[in-house]
Amino acid sequence: MGIDPGTATTGFSIINKTKKGIKVLDYGCIITSPDLSPGERLKIINNELNKLIKKYRPEIMAVESLYFFKNFKTAMPVSQAKGVILLTAAKKKIPVYEYTPLQMKMAIAGYGRAEKKQVQKMIQSLFNLEAKPKDKNKRKDDATDALGIAFCYVLQSRNATVK
Amino acid sequence: MGIDPGTATTGFSIINKTKKGIKVLDYGCIITSPDLSPGERLKIINNELNKLIKKYRPEIMAVESLYFFKNFKTAMPVSQAKGVILLTAAKKKIPVYEYTPLQMKMAIAGYGRAEKKQVQKMIQSLFNLEAKPKDKNKRKDDATDALGIAFCYVLQSRNATVK
Repeated sequence: MGIDPGTATTGFSIINKTKKGIKVLDYGCIITSPDLSPGERLKIINNELNKLIKKYRPEIMAVESLYFFKNFKTAMPVSQAKGVILLTAAKKKIPVYEYTPLQMKMAIAGYGRAEKKQVQKMIQSLFNLEAKPKDKNKRKDDATDALGIAFCYVLQSRNATVK
Repeated sequence: MGIDPGTATTGFSIINKTKKGIKVLDYGCIITSPDLSPGERLKIINNELNKLIKKYRPEIMAVESLYFFKNFKTAMPVSQAKGVILLTAAKKKIPVYEYTPLQMKMAIAGYGRAEKKQVQKMIQSLFNLEAKPKDKNKRKDDATDALGIAFCYVLQSRNATVK
């Protein structure tokens, strides 16, 4: 399970790695209304994550982690959502792996300076996603990012096996 | 209920306002070990808060909120803990009020430039706390801050009544 945290939009992905390759089981966004209180928005994220965990029973959770932020007002709701996501995983005893946007770019594009749009396209190509999914919740960058984050773990665990 | 959020140390206070005055029912700190994963630490905060809520059934929760931070590495664990605290309150349908450190200083000391130590002493005097509580978890600044934050709500609701 890959997660790109945010109070307004949390991207998620569920992938399954078998000997035949990687299969995308689900991906999309949990979107919460700005009309709700922060607590209510976090409750929706917690509820939706629990539903996904119940449905797919993921073995691991890969979460995007930011260590630098230009604007604290942007960083705060992301960190609050991440706190709720880490709590949700801990309660379900799912191990969490964290990856930075740089690590994700390296995993997908092979170099850290790749542009966001380019990385998005590479993820779509890597997972054979439709260029324009009908569901608007799957068109969001955050949903695609969550796939990239999940792929970081696949790549890391593959390398670990090789070693 | 007053809360001063943090992943390492979350200060809490439970006060009761009656016609006779303000009574401190409980205050202290939830301390989590750095040896645990962030998710496990957040789970402890969630569990301990739920125990306090079950015991004291607070009508409102006042939470310290920071809007500026010098260092994002310090801000991140505070925001993650705050996310979990807001979630815990929302799940129990407890309304949350947020106050900045400046608002707390104004409420306690009457002016925003008061020094931290001075504010701590004024809180101890305001609530008739022992100068040196035996329990080390009550000596922490965060526990005293949580009392100050709870007092912000008392002051605000009193002003609201006067108006």
